[in-house]
Amino acid sequence: MFKHNEQQPEGFQISLKEALDNLAFNDAGLVAAIAQQHDSGEVLMMAWMNREAIEETLATGRVCYFSRSRGKLWRKGESSGQVQTLKELRIDCDGDALLVKVDQTGSACHTGRRDCFYWKADANNVTIDKAPIKDPKELYGK
Amino acid sequence: MFKHNEQQPEGFQISLKEALDNLAFNDAGLVAAIAQQHDSGEVLMMAWMNREAIEETLATGRVCYFSRSRGKLWRKGESSGQVQTLKELRIDCDGDALLVKVDQTGSACHTGRRDCFYWKADANNVTIDKAPIKDPKELYGK
Repeated sequence: MFKHNEQQPEGFQISLKEALDNLAFNDAGLVAAIAQQHDSGEVLMMAWMNREAIEETLATGRVCYFSRSRGKLWRKGESSGQVQTLKELRIDCDGDALLVKVDQTGSACHTGRRDCFYWKADANNVTIDKAPIKDPKELYGK
Repeated sequence: MFKHNEQQPEGFQISLKEALDNLAFNDAGLVAAIAQQHDSGEVLMMAWMNREAIEETLATGRVCYFSRSRGKLWRKGESSGQVQTLKELRIDCDGDALLVKVDQTGSACHTGRRDCFYWKADANNVTIDKAPIKDPKELYGK
């Protein structure tokens, strides 16, 4: 469906149900979701969503992922308070990735850093170049 | 390894080999790679890299993915001319996603659009809201 309609013009519309019926979920029923801070453009994290997480995110405006480690819906910030408010949700050309523009409260990363991409690689080494903005003990140690 | 060192300070460094040895490649030997235009912050596309693609990208400065459909290395732009020059490659906290900051020539998307995320979703509908900037026939019809 996404492939079939890729040459449609701006304004071409399908129902959310049709889109979700045609997403390229992987064997675990998930698609990758990239969270981006809506105004600064920072890429905050990558996580996964199942159909239910996408539906809940769009219905509530609070971003909900599917936690692969816990095997259940993960309402971002439910433990840490570091919630993501939905600004925009986009689907890519082949329907296997989502771009979720959010307003991130505090830190997106469980380490207390603003974003998860704090290891910078070059041809020889990989170096941490970001520091926490929150104490992770305060985020999860309540 | 990534988890073990997540509380290390800025400047903490490991070798590229150690990082690659510890990436959380999936069953197909791949990690997700998010391509972002380095200056504007646009998220252009999501694709996949295997170890060899990461090594080649860092060694050459030209972004190389692994094509799941073709089952081989995919030097972005090799058919279309729409290459990505590497500006920065980052690894996330759990070592299963990469953020690749690039300078994108022309269109990242095979449809001729600047980026792949041209379907915008809301609670009821999903709508195309971006037009091609290149004619895909010109990109691939040579």
